[in-house]
Amino acid sequence: MNAPLSAPLLPEVHPRPFPPEALAALQARFGGRCSTALAVREQHGRDESAFTHVPPPAAVVFAESTADVADAVRIAAHWRVPVIPFGVGSSLEGHLLAVQGGISLDLSRMNQVLAVQPEDLTATVRPGVTRKQLNEAVKHLGLFFPIDPGADASLGGMAATRASGTNAVRYGTMRDNVLALEVVTASGAVLRTGTRARKSSAGYDLTRLFVGSEGTLGVITELTLRLYPLPEAVSAAICSFPSVEAAVRTTIAIIQMGIPIARCELLDARTVRAVNAHSKLGLREEPMLLMEFHGSPSSVREQAELVQAIADEHGGQAFEWATTPEERTRLWTARHNAYFAGVQSRPGCRAITTDACVPISRLADNVLAAVADAEAAGLPYFLVGHVGDGNFHMGYLIDPDDPAERATAERLNHALVERALASGGTCTGEHGVGLHKMGFLRAEAGEEALAVMRAIKAALDPQDILNPGKVVAP
Amino acid sequence: MNAPLSAPLLPEVHPRPFPPEALAALQARFGGRCSTALAVREQHGRDESAFTHVPPPAAVVFAESTADVADAVRIAAHWRVPVIPFGVGSSLEGHLLAVQGGISLDLSRMNQVLAVQPEDLTATVRPGVTRKQLNEAVKHLGLFFPIDPGADASLGGMAATRASGTNAVRYGTMRDNVLALEVVTASGAVLRTGTRARKSSAGYDLTRLFVGSEGTLGVITELTLRLYPLPEAVSAAICSFPSVEAAVRTTIAIIQMGIPIARCELLDARTVRAVNAHSKLGLREEPMLLMEFHGSPSSVREQAELVQAIADEHGGQAFEWATTPEERTRLWTARHNAYFAGVQSRPGCRAITTDACVPISRLADNVLAAVADAEAAGLPYFLVGHVGDGNFHMGYLIDPDDPAERATAERLNHALVERALASGGTCTGEHGVGLHKMGFLRAEAGEEALAVMRAIKAALDPQDILNPGKVVAP
Repeated sequence: MNAPLSAPLLPEVHPRPFPPEALAALQARFGGRCSTALAVREQHGRDESAFTHVPPPAAVVFAESTADVADAVRIAAHWRVPVIPFGVGSSLEGHLLAVQGGISLDLSRMNQVLAVQPEDLTATVRPGVTRKQLNEAVKHLGLFFPIDPGADASLGGMAATRASGTNAVRYGTMRDNVLALEVVTASGAVLRTGTRARKSSAGYDLTRLFVGSEGTLGVITELTLRLYPLPEAVSAAICSFPSVEAAVRTTIAIIQMGIPIARCELLDARTVRAVNAHSKLGLREEPMLLMEFHGSPSSVREQAELVQAIADEHGGQAFEWATTPEERTRLWTARHNAYFAGVQSRPGCRAITTDACVPISRLADNVLAAVADAEAAGLPYFLVGHVGDGNFHMGYLIDPDDPAERATAERLNHALVERALASGGTCTGEHGVGLHKMGFLRAEAGEEALAVMRAIKAALDPQDILNPGKVVAP
Repeated sequence: MNAPLSAPLLPEVHPRPFPPEALAALQARFGGRCSTALAVREQHGRDESAFTHVPPPAAVVFAESTADVADAVRIAAHWRVPVIPFGVGSSLEGHLLAVQGGISLDLSRMNQVLAVQPEDLTATVRPGVTRKQLNEAVKHLGLFFPIDPGADASLGGMAATRASGTNAVRYGTMRDNVLALEVVTASGAVLRTGTRARKSSAGYDLTRLFVGSEGTLGVITELTLRLYPLPEAVSAAICSFPSVEAAVRTTIAIIQMGIPIARCELLDARTVRAVNAHSKLGLREEPMLLMEFHGSPSSVREQAELVQAIADEHGGQAFEWATTPEERTRLWTARHNAYFAGVQSRPGCRAITTDACVPISRLADNVLAAVADAEAAGLPYFLVGHVGDGNFHMGYLIDPDDPAERATAERLNHALVERALASGGTCTGEHGVGLHKMGFLRAEAGEEALAVMRAIKAALDPQDILNPGKVVAP
């Protein structure tokens, strides 16, 4: 750790001037696709973060092509107006909030699957295509795109935040599954990174630089992604445990044995209770692992038998199979709704969600300390984890109008991140930095690395118009 | 393709001034660890590329610590003297050649395995540790590091060139297996990138930016790497085919079926012949796939049966198993020596090696056209390929003193890269750009992307002292 941890209770808002000439230029170019209607602006000025007080952008431009994006950025650059790319608005850390004003650049109409190359296991899509849409488009070819952050996010947004989710333990994250990009830079230039080859040593890895840059270095206008053959056999299982620790220790043993588990999710008893209420399920209200195995029928059976034996050793009970697609869908839908189940368990609340990821040997103590802190503070929470990766989320359910609750949640979040960093982990496994984790990034990366990030930002966006005030902003 | 292809027949040499004060400062700091002996300089002024005419560096500094590296870079920065990091000298594209003079910074004494965390499947090493050394150090823990470029390269060098090799089809490349780095920047500052967590969305992906930057953005002084459990069962197999095309089509089917093959290597008949002569083997002198399967005993058996059935459909013959470690080692040693076997098949020659990687659907036509071109030109060659990744190498065996042969080899290389780029592939799958592929990089990336790479280089190394004249240099 290199600097004191800090996260803003509420982000600072400093709108830049938005000259009427800039709006006129956008309206001349985009006509009705440049909107200043309050409802449209408000819809583009909020995300799933707990920040509710930031004014919306001054205008929303709906792009339908790379040329639209390039022209919007060029107009914005001319007038030094911020540009905030927008997919479906499912980000969690304030990524989309117009803290310096400017325009929201809505990419949701760029939702074409441009090409699928089944023999190469690749697809090329526009950024507004969502993960479910892509999966629908390739299902008949026996293929799928594994990255699954829960929300039906846009693939451009998922690349921009380096998303992952439940399948990452087997298939990696967006970092690993984006082969190539088309990007509009801060000057309105269009560049391509990467190729359709599976690997390359050709120069600096610009693909990986734009993946995870959260709209601050360029606007992604096309992605080439890796696809995978649908596994011949898929099987899901749930198992209850006497404690969170027993569930985590089971996970550690699975990973250390090299079992190629496809999903390994933890829910604590509280969260199972909320999920039962929300999804009308009758799951045992104890800490639970929800797992999935992919492969040939015999390898799936072998993996599952090994895992069941490991779970038994750690006191696992009620190991149950879900082999039909309907049963599996029911379970994973419930898991995906855990966030909303948690939020609905306290009417009117907002969730402040943590996202630490630690080396797996440190997972148990990090999770247990986080739970103990939340219990001691008396703040309602939910706990889910992509525990195969060492990634877990506490969601603190606060009254957004109660500064004391917000402060408590942030205090717990600080303590949690501090422990994660001291354990050799990261403040964010998959949600990104946005506004909310800028102080944490500074503590994690250190001043020297942050200076390099800022030098890159300054080199690529010298006027600071691309999603300014986020990630690496001073 | 964005610009005409070009590769230098011989790189231009423009040594910068090397002031006596710079040498005095290095000698004062490093004493006997700063050498100007001609033999030492010459050993650090050549690599495995076909370039033999570049003068050696002015001095060689042997670093033993991060502080040594930082001080050497600071002295070099003060006098604007180039610094070229050196591992074991196994690079292939002229990466190490002192085309602008300066010092070679030898990191081979920084060869400590600093920590192994078996429960997290990670290890932290100094850059001079070689891949075989690391594997020796972790074998007793039941772990291994899979990346295997053939040569017993240093891990720092492997990261710097984004190396991969025979295991990449299953385990990925250095891009996927470096978790964190310590890097000395052009100002002599020491920064850390990444953490020991398996994934992160914390800011710009500096780890991936330094991996593959070939010493032009910073000097890697520490790496944290992913390890894997040694597979319970390993089995190798060879299979001969009536044609290169049949072998490639077999590979395509294996990948498309999602079989988790661990290695899948192609050798053409000519190369098998050279390997037989070099390694005293009796392999059938026909196009051959050399494969390896990792997993549980039953999954290895299942994979191999599936692959054998696919090979049968494509006319595969003489499918043979190597299940004992001794047999496997013999086969893989022969494969690793294919480069030297090829070079030794023509006494006194140097190899000009190509490294294209294409989408796998285009592999057969790319390989066949390359072979046809070489046959038509009458130039001796060898052909090996990490075909599971779409990556293949032609090695043109030239008389280094015959400009006509060099020109022919470069013409063939141009045509090969042109086809690869037109196929959606890359000019280099794993060797890097160095000096030799700078023109190809320009064609592949395009002017806009190259401009961004140069902007990053200028931001991070404003005096252009880190391995200047390579990769993205104008």
